[in-house]
Amino acid sequence: MRKMIVGGAQMGPIQQADSRETVVARMMELMRKAHAEGVKMLVYPELALTTFFPRWYAEDRAEMDRWFESEMPNGATQPLFDLAREMGMAFTFGFAELTPDGHHYNTSILTDAQANIVGTYRKVHLPGHVDHDPERTHQHLEKRYFEPGDLGFNVWRNEGVVMGMAICNDRRWPETYRELGLQGVELITIGYNTPSVNSQKGAEGLRQRLFHSDLSMQAGAYQNSTYVVGVAKAGTEDGHHLMGGSIIVDPDGEVIARAETEGDELIFAECDFDRCTFGKATVFDFARHRRIEHYQRIGRQTGVIVPV
Amino acid sequence: MRKMIVGGAQMGPIQQADSRETVVARMMELMRKAHAEGVKMLVYPELALTTFFPRWYAEDRAEMDRWFESEMPNGATQPLFDLAREMGMAFTFGFAELTPDGHHYNTSILTDAQANIVGTYRKVHLPGHVDHDPERTHQHLEKRYFEPGDLGFNVWRNEGVVMGMAICNDRRWPETYRELGLQGVELITIGYNTPSVNSQKGAEGLRQRLFHSDLSMQAGAYQNSTYVVGVAKAGTEDGHHLMGGSIIVDPDGEVIARAETEGDELIFAECDFDRCTFGKATVFDFARHRRIEHYQRIGRQTGVIVPV
Repeated sequence: MRKMIVGGAQMGPIQQADSRETVVARMMELMRKAHAEGVKMLVYPELALTTFFPRWYAEDRAEMDRWFESEMPNGATQPLFDLAREMGMAFTFGFAELTPDGHHYNTSILTDAQANIVGTYRKVHLPGHVDHDPERTHQHLEKRYFEPGDLGFNVWRNEGVVMGMAICNDRRWPETYRELGLQGVELITIGYNTPSVNSQKGAEGLRQRLFHSDLSMQAGAYQNSTYVVGVAKAGTEDGHHLMGGSIIVDPDGEVIARAETEGDELIFAECDFDRCTFGKATVFDFARHRRIEHYQRIGRQTGVIVPV
Repeated sequence: MRKMIVGGAQMGPIQQADSRETVVARMMELMRKAHAEGVKMLVYPELALTTFFPRWYAEDRAEMDRWFESEMPNGATQPLFDLAREMGMAFTFGFAELTPDGHHYNTSILTDAQANIVGTYRKVHLPGHVDHDPERTHQHLEKRYFEPGDLGFNVWRNEGVVMGMAICNDRRWPETYRELGLQGVELITIGYNTPSVNSQKGAEGLRQRLFHSDLSMQAGAYQNSTYVVGVAKAGTEDGHHLMGGSIIVDPDGEVIARAETEGDELIFAECDFDRCTFGKATVFDFARHRRIEHYQRIGRQTGVIVPV
């Protein structure tokens, strides 16, 4: 058995006025709690260092560069890396990345237990819109402030486990899980910031939004026989509410840990990665059962074409 | 609003000794009940005319040809088509198809309200195995008796609704729903025969098997903003138990009707197909959000390749 205790470090709200240093101190406190529980791999949310700034419109997008990191680790996050190395804790968190050549991505990094960055992921499925939309109850301008990720979906063998990353809206897309599943993924980490109100459908409600989040991650786990850890930034940021609902899902699609609050909260579960084997060898033995000759629209056709 | 009452005609067990005529009489009784409830589109199970014969091994596969239909409609099923035409009821059911040139498929047909066959689907994802497997508690020889479907996933505009078909194990594969979703599907019909015991994992249990069935169909509905109707053949056939759990799922992934028995049972719900529009225009607006440059493994790589 390949067992590892995996943790999700849900984070409560981060206000615009909060410094990176304050936030990193909270992340370190969650890491210490995780260490005390035997966690060896800790998952933080998307855009873990700052408020969820895409809710605000800036005519000049450069105004938003203050929310981006131009190197990682940097001065503010170095203490987190140092603590992780001291504790032998692998981790992943999300941040807004500004590259040396001026590209903007919604990014996450993965480290090994020595706090070396072993993997980088850039969010592929950016939700929302590019321009200010007066029809919405709030803005969701990820398509304005970020470029779609250019790295695709990759896995890394980290601490003996095949790990892959995705971010927030990626979790609603079965292509995300399948691309990773085709690489034998055993643990998918997904940080998110999800407004608890649909800006275009007020009637949707928090219950249904949590249901959609769970449903997508549970199906992705089951259909690829992998663990999935989904971790929220939750609570009210400058008057805007983000849902919580962080979960750990096993390879049968069952929720085995769930956050109960909308604040900084550790969830964790012992994952036996050998449990991924059964599904991958039977009902989801892709080599025996997939019929790629009938999947050609998926990779060739972006939008809907109604043929009749 | 484009509203239609859609029904699922769950069927109880069919024993080896039961004639096609007996079974068709039961199907007609369910159709009459559906008509009385205002149903305009009725979904029957996979292999609706016979017992689920792939549970038995025959050294000479030609022995199994007696479970196949070489034309449709035929003498036994003509009364069902006649009743449907009289009632103005569109329907779909599954059967084992033997083609004039000797091919064997696990097939379903779709009719319009005049009982004309407007669509044919042949099951793509055949579960199970080819040879007798003494390690299993029961056999599941679909790969022995059928060829994989050669028609792919298609839609038809039928009675004003974009409809697609899938069969049983297809429902566990997100590629099924996505291929149909990329064609603007609004109603996916899925008949199934699912043993209530995993032949390779006795501990799995009925609850979890029902959960996996629900989970796959609910995720497929939500992620493609379509109605899904899943209809079981249920109960004990010659000593082998099939699970029930027929459901109708709305475009939010919510179950809006569910069978309560393991016998012949009608479920139905009023479906407003205009409700498919919101998801297709927002969070699942494929044209805006899908990134096919990162989906290339899905259509090019059949099995798992662990790159690390």
